[in-house]
Amino acid sequence: MVSAGLWDEKDISLRGLETLKKCDEVFLELYTDNIGIRKESLEKLIGKEVKVLRRKDLEEDYERILERSREKDVAIVVGGDALVATTHAMLLLEARKRNVETRVIHSSSVISAVAECGLHAYKFGAIVTIPLRERTMKALPESVYRVIKENLERGLHTLCLLDVDVEAGKFLSVREALETLMSLEEKLRQGAVSTQRKIVVASKLGSEEQRIVFGSIEEVYKVSEELKLPAVIIIPGKLHFTEEEFLKFFELKPKI
Amino acid sequence: MVSAGLWDEKDISLRGLETLKKCDEVFLELYTDNIGIRKESLEKLIGKEVKVLRRKDLEEDYERILERSREKDVAIVVGGDALVATTHAMLLLEARKRNVETRVIHSSSVISAVAECGLHAYKFGAIVTIPLRERTMKALPESVYRVIKENLERGLHTLCLLDVDVEAGKFLSVREALETLMSLEEKLRQGAVSTQRKIVVASKLGSEEQRIVFGSIEEVYKVSEELKLPAVIIIPGKLHFTEEEFLKFFELKPKI
Repeated sequence: MVSAGLWDEKDISLRGLETLKKCDEVFLELYTDNIGIRKESLEKLIGKEVKVLRRKDLEEDYERILERSREKDVAIVVGGDALVATTHAMLLLEARKRNVETRVIHSSSVISAVAECGLHAYKFGAIVTIPLRERTMKALPESVYRVIKENLERGLHTLCLLDVDVEAGKFLSVREALETLMSLEEKLRQGAVSTQRKIVVASKLGSEEQRIVFGSIEEVYKVSEELKLPAVIIIPGKLHFTEEEFLKFFELKPKI
Repeated sequence: MVSAGLWDEKDISLRGLETLKKCDEVFLELYTDNIGIRKESLEKLIGKEVKVLRRKDLEEDYERILERSREKDVAIVVGGDALVATTHAMLLLEARKRNVETRVIHSSSVISAVAECGLHAYKFGAIVTIPLRERTMKALPESVYRVIKENLERGLHTLCLLDVDVEAGKFLSVREALETLMSLEEKLRQGAVSTQRKIVVASKLGSEEQRIVFGSIEEVYKVSEELKLPAVIIIPGKLHFTEEEFLKFFELKPKI
């Protein structure tokens, strides 16, 4: 399993590239992550054919891939750092159960890259994922609110990932995610994500178009259409003065 | 700032390598991380001279490096993912204050790579660092115990980093770290790290010699001399059944 890293094929490590060149078959999984890597550019880089996997191939028909890897060296290229997505951890588990030898080549992940906002890595609490709109229409994700609140009570930052279903063409936008947070506040009213709460949004981290903004939920909401995916929202906890100093560089200036 | 990733120069990303080849000057910072990257191998890889930075160069004399980067493209290669170490975040902050243009190239970090243990990334709480022995001799790090306990109360896993001072030649071993945890339990007696508590140790993650073990603190302590640095200790919280299944592969078998 070769991690593709934050953005595109250039985020693959030298170890990853070396491995891909040696492997007999290379698959590319694109449905869990909304990133810039493409079949054609990866093929050009490694000089061999790349087959794109659908969700079904990994979640239902994984036996076929595992069988193949008994005879050949099979690589699966996945976005971010490989095992952050539970689907990939599950595939590795199934491989181990069948005594298929496995190896993971790591790369960059938003989990550590988010330190670019200037927030200290060791001050992050549990991570949440804000679900796709169609799901939150049925029931608000109260557990998201609870985790943010618990983190805040301990002075910890919360990294909020935005749900995605690439195959279905569904991507939760920053705007929709903020609306979910505001609906949660309206329902639960415990102040965890009031419109005045200052937050950070990091958009397209690791790409040439990376953008980080810092402001109240209300202020960020106003510019949310400009914040392209992939993006994450961070709810800062108690700030160290160096974190505060750092965040100032990302502060939204009111447009006059 | 170019991240060197988990282990050696092969963990640098293609984007990182491209950047290093373009830069006018390349520095290597080795004192915050105990990893396998070396000046000579990096020089061979990028085809230019690499200067090794001492702690003093980054923490006291950073003005000189920042001044240099006004005229030239200067790269600093650092272990892991660049900004996880607060020292590096501080340097970036100082650069920004002086309007020096900065860019961070990310790579793998133990923070996400630890998912190789089979523990879900979103179930980790705040990270702790277990201090070097000479410091814990003076005063036990009670905050480490408190964070582990708070994480456990929320069912969250705790990633424990082991303190290091490469320049002073000081490295906290797994054995010493476990002794610190046991001393904390002895003093505070709240059961967070009793000798029967099951833990994970991940040693040399991302290298050819990677080793992961799972067992009670007592069991892991018995084999702790075999667990080479760099290493991390994970105190698992509430386990999902797939996490349990995964951890079984790392279970220490009693030696008869």
